[in-house]
Amino acid sequence: MDYNKQEDPASLKNLQPIVLLKPKLDKGKSVLKALQSRKTIREINNKKLPLQVLSNLLWAACGVNRKKGPFGIYGRTAATASNSQEIDLYVALQEGIYFYDAFHHRLIPIVAGDLRALAIGHGQKNFGDKAPIRIIYIADVNKLSNTSGYQEPGLHDPEIQKSYYYVDTGLIAGNVYLFAASHGLASWFHNCDKPALTAKLKLHSDQKVLFGQSVGYPVKK
Amino acid sequence: MDYNKQEDPASLKNLQPIVLLKPKLDKGKSVLKALQSRKTIREINNKKLPLQVLSNLLWAACGVNRKKGPFGIYGRTAATASNSQEIDLYVALQEGIYFYDAFHHRLIPIVAGDLRALAIGHGQKNFGDKAPIRIIYIADVNKLSNTSGYQEPGLHDPEIQKSYYYVDTGLIAGNVYLFAASHGLASWFHNCDKPALTAKLKLHSDQKVLFGQSVGYPVKK
Repeated sequence: MDYNKQEDPASLKNLQPIVLLKPKLDKGKSVLKALQSRKTIREINNKKLPLQVLSNLLWAACGVNRKKGPFGIYGRTAATASNSQEIDLYVALQEGIYFYDAFHHRLIPIVAGDLRALAIGHGQKNFGDKAPIRIIYIADVNKLSNTSGYQEPGLHDPEIQKSYYYVDTGLIAGNVYLFAASHGLASWFHNCDKPALTAKLKLHSDQKVLFGQSVGYPVKK
Repeated sequence: MDYNKQEDPASLKNLQPIVLLKPKLDKGKSVLKALQSRKTIREINNKKLPLQVLSNLLWAACGVNRKKGPFGIYGRTAATASNSQEIDLYVALQEGIYFYDAFHHRLIPIVAGDLRALAIGHGQKNFGDKAPIRIIYIADVNKLSNTSGYQEPGLHDPEIQKSYYYVDTGLIAGNVYLFAASHGLASWFHNCDKPALTAKLKLHSDQKVLFGQSVGYPVKK
């Protein structure tokens, strides 16, 4: 994460960091009840999520859940290969795209403007999805190569790296699905416009845009 | 799944299918509380899981949770690309390796004998893990190519197929982690001996052995 990026005033306008609220853990269904109702829901209305729900959602996805995780650094709600924490979440809201800084549990603005259409694949836009939030999964392969702890085999091999960062994306996306199911939200996991996002977010060559996931309230039928 | 495989008496000995119990959904932590305690635990003792817990675990992983899922077939607790349901779970127990038949919620024996050591990677065997159950994730790429419903882009492209089946593995593995966290079980996701498992399970060329995941009771410290 190159924090200098956010200093570009033209792309940021007046966007400020969003300080997320401490997750409230006292609500929602049990794991098994949530699994019973887990399903992909593509019809999402445009109603915004309250800040507490957004905060809980991102913490559930891959927030910090303990100070002492494997290999001397903090742990997250979702496992990663050798605790490399190589998957970054970028979050497309109406106001702009933000980087989820899990350690400080806040959203750092990266680029202003409603770019949610880029966080969904070509040909996937006709499902009535007007989701207020689209998560963008971006792997930083540098973090896999430079993990300090016990090394899973092949952390420097680009082919094996793929297997890790895609699985690790699924682990986070599964948390999002279950959080949505436990809180009456709709969610679906989908493709995204990788070249456009790579350009807009000014990613470096070790950052790979992988997938998107929309979350919001289901359209009432 | 080639059911003829199980007819080989030499490899099966007297192993019978294990009829799993209907999942009991009335226990365990909430999703958010489970996320709070989610972590990788590698020190697992050899105590077997009761049949009800094993049944709940496999249902939580990727069991059938509704008769009508996307594209006219049943739905599962874990999403898959275009509902292709391309990830098969094989389960290594002390008695042998079984195929998890999610539709009938039962375990079908594939090969007899304690082969749990194959379901863990070389160099990963020194963590005090004597897990009674090791899940083996195997992708059947045929199922991605032949999905009848809406087609995600690239379902016939081997490179893109990879991205789907690894993510879909993570979605299942995340369910396993959360089930474990909600029920006081230990779990960790790891590599496995792909060539040995491919041979032992007599897989066809479209089946790719991907990863393993151990589950059991944590070693008390």
